[in-house]
Amino acid sequence: MRGLHLTADLYQCRCEPRWLADAQALGDWARQATEAVGLEVLHQVCHPGADQDGNTVALLLAHSHVCLHTWPRQRGVSVDVYLASGAGDLSAKARGLMFALVNRFAPEWTEQRSLDRGTEGA
Amino acid sequence: MRGLHLTADLYQCRCEPRWLADAQALGDWARQATEAVGLEVLHQVCHPGADQDGNTVALLLAHSHVCLHTWPRQRGVSVDVYLASGAGDLSAKARGLMFALVNRFAPEWTEQRSLDRGTEGA
Repeated sequence: MRGLHLTADLYQCRCEPRWLADAQALGDWARQATEAVGLEVLHQVCHPGADQDGNTVALLLAHSHVCLHTWPRQRGVSVDVYLASGAGDLSAKARGLMFALVNRFAPEWTEQRSLDRGTEGA
Repeated sequence: MRGLHLTADLYQCRCEPRWLADAQALGDWARQATEAVGLEVLHQVCHPGADQDGNTVALLLAHSHVCLHTWPRQRGVSVDVYLASGAGDLSAKARGLMFALVNRFAPEWTEQRSLDRGTEGA
């Protein structure tokens, strides 16, 4: 059950507006970014909100998930990368993936946290 | 973008084994628990792992998500409840839902954290 959970809240994103407004485009890109660091995506769900109301993308991995929520009006995004129980260096994969996801949105500033999870029961 | 993110890692769960092993039963129950605190579920995804390899359940809500991963062999579960931008007292809903989810598994012990998210950009 050992895992690493990275969170990021992104503000004043200067990316192309479609990355905040188009759930399918964001989901497809996030999936590619996840696979690019060597992770297998089991399910991809893209939920478009009402106009300018923001979107949700969730990628399910084995014992792991990646979630993004966008706020187009505020040009904000929240990102979660939670990886557990996989092969290889999960920390490098999690940090590499978070780096790619954050860069996509070109935020003016971010709040990021790192949680070690499942440490007691390992 | 203000939100509350609660995480819980559960160990030595003493619940009926099906709550760890049956993704659909867990997903249906988690959805009911989420709706019981007054939250609308937009998407429910249940991914059954290979035998005894654990399951993943994700519930997508507006700007919010609930994710559960189970480890049947270790009798462990990880739970995330992330609520943002909704109506009413999100903190009460998040804590009420997390309480219900944790109780379902009857863990011997837990590690729980609470993160205030999106505070800078609000």
